[in-house]
Amino acid sequence: MDDHAHLIEQQVGREVILDGNFLHVRRDTVRLPTGELATREYVVHPGAVMVVPLADDGQLVVARQWRHPLGRVLLEFPAGKIDAGEGALATARRELREETGYTAREWARACVIHNAAAYATEAIEIWFARGLQAGAQQLDVGEHIDVGLMAADELDALAARGELTDAKTLIGLLWLQRWRAGDWPLQWQA
Amino acid sequence: MDDHAHLIEQQVGREVILDGNFLHVRRDTVRLPTGELATREYVVHPGAVMVVPLADDGQLVVARQWRHPLGRVLLEFPAGKIDAGEGALATARRELREETGYTAREWARACVIHNAAAYATEAIEIWFARGLQAGAQQLDVGEHIDVGLMAADELDALAARGELTDAKTLIGLLWLQRWRAGDWPLQWQA
Repeated sequence: MDDHAHLIEQQVGREVILDGNFLHVRRDTVRLPTGELATREYVVHPGAVMVVPLADDGQLVVARQWRHPLGRVLLEFPAGKIDAGEGALATARRELREETGYTAREWARACVIHNAAAYATEAIEIWFARGLQAGAQQLDVGEHIDVGLMAADELDALAARGELTDAKTLIGLLWLQRWRAGDWPLQWQA
Repeated sequence: MDDHAHLIEQQVGREVILDGNFLHVRRDTVRLPTGELATREYVVHPGAVMVVPLADDGQLVVARQWRHPLGRVLLEFPAGKIDAGEGALATARRELREETGYTAREWARACVIHNAAAYATEAIEIWFARGLQAGAQQLDVGEHIDVGLMAADELDALAARGELTDAKTLIGLLWLQRWRAGDWPLQWQA
């Protein structure tokens, strides 16, 4: 399965079909491997960063936030979009501080995930933070986020019962468990 | 953090801002907890199902597919959108058969995940399948999917190196490992 040439679709046209306040959607025309033409519509996303914040007592900093598309509150690790020209670690520091008030002494990049490959360009970098220092939230206008601390076991039990549904947060929990077990490495930096 | 009333946004208006061939986008007006108005744009998605197909020798059936928004081939468990009026298990059976050719004797529902809560209504149900029988793929026009078998350890090593990036697939792997360890239960049905 390593030679992918027969799977590749070649872009031959591009049109912006939505330039919204928040969402930007393209319609590309592609040439399929068979030579036929098809269209592909997708959200253009700047990328995002999620932070798994480890408190000194072993608990995790979590956020609860209303997610309008789902009509419910989700339990998530802090996350946010990368600003134009911003590096991923800078986004991680900024989102952790803005959403939760915490700053961190040490950082480690775990991985990158693709959460909606069928219809969005979004990639989410997952970073770990430790050496936390509490501070005041700096939320945007219209942003309301409840911050709390939870043990990994508590998050694990929620996941087992199907009550922790946010994909990036589940993957952060997976990484945390594998890192604590000594299976998956993290390279910490100041 | 259990009383969420102060986080809830109330929808007061709705407009379809994109009715594409594939993507449908709404712009809702919402009243924030503070009383101010704001807009929320999001993709309306019918929901999807992913299948973790367990072969009798312990390997997993995986699919490689070109993902145009990312401009690359992703390694994924088989998945697809729920058709109008279709139950999730019916989608699971259909997508497994269409994308990989396999049918399964037993099924178990693991969980549901939200993969793009900020801008899509999508929920993905994750099902496990075992008692597999190989058959012929039934792909849609323009669909090209390479099917293969991989050991869970191989997938785990790819994840540890950051080379398995599809969010739903990582969560399927997490569930598989926790189920095999006896930590997270699956209820099998014929």
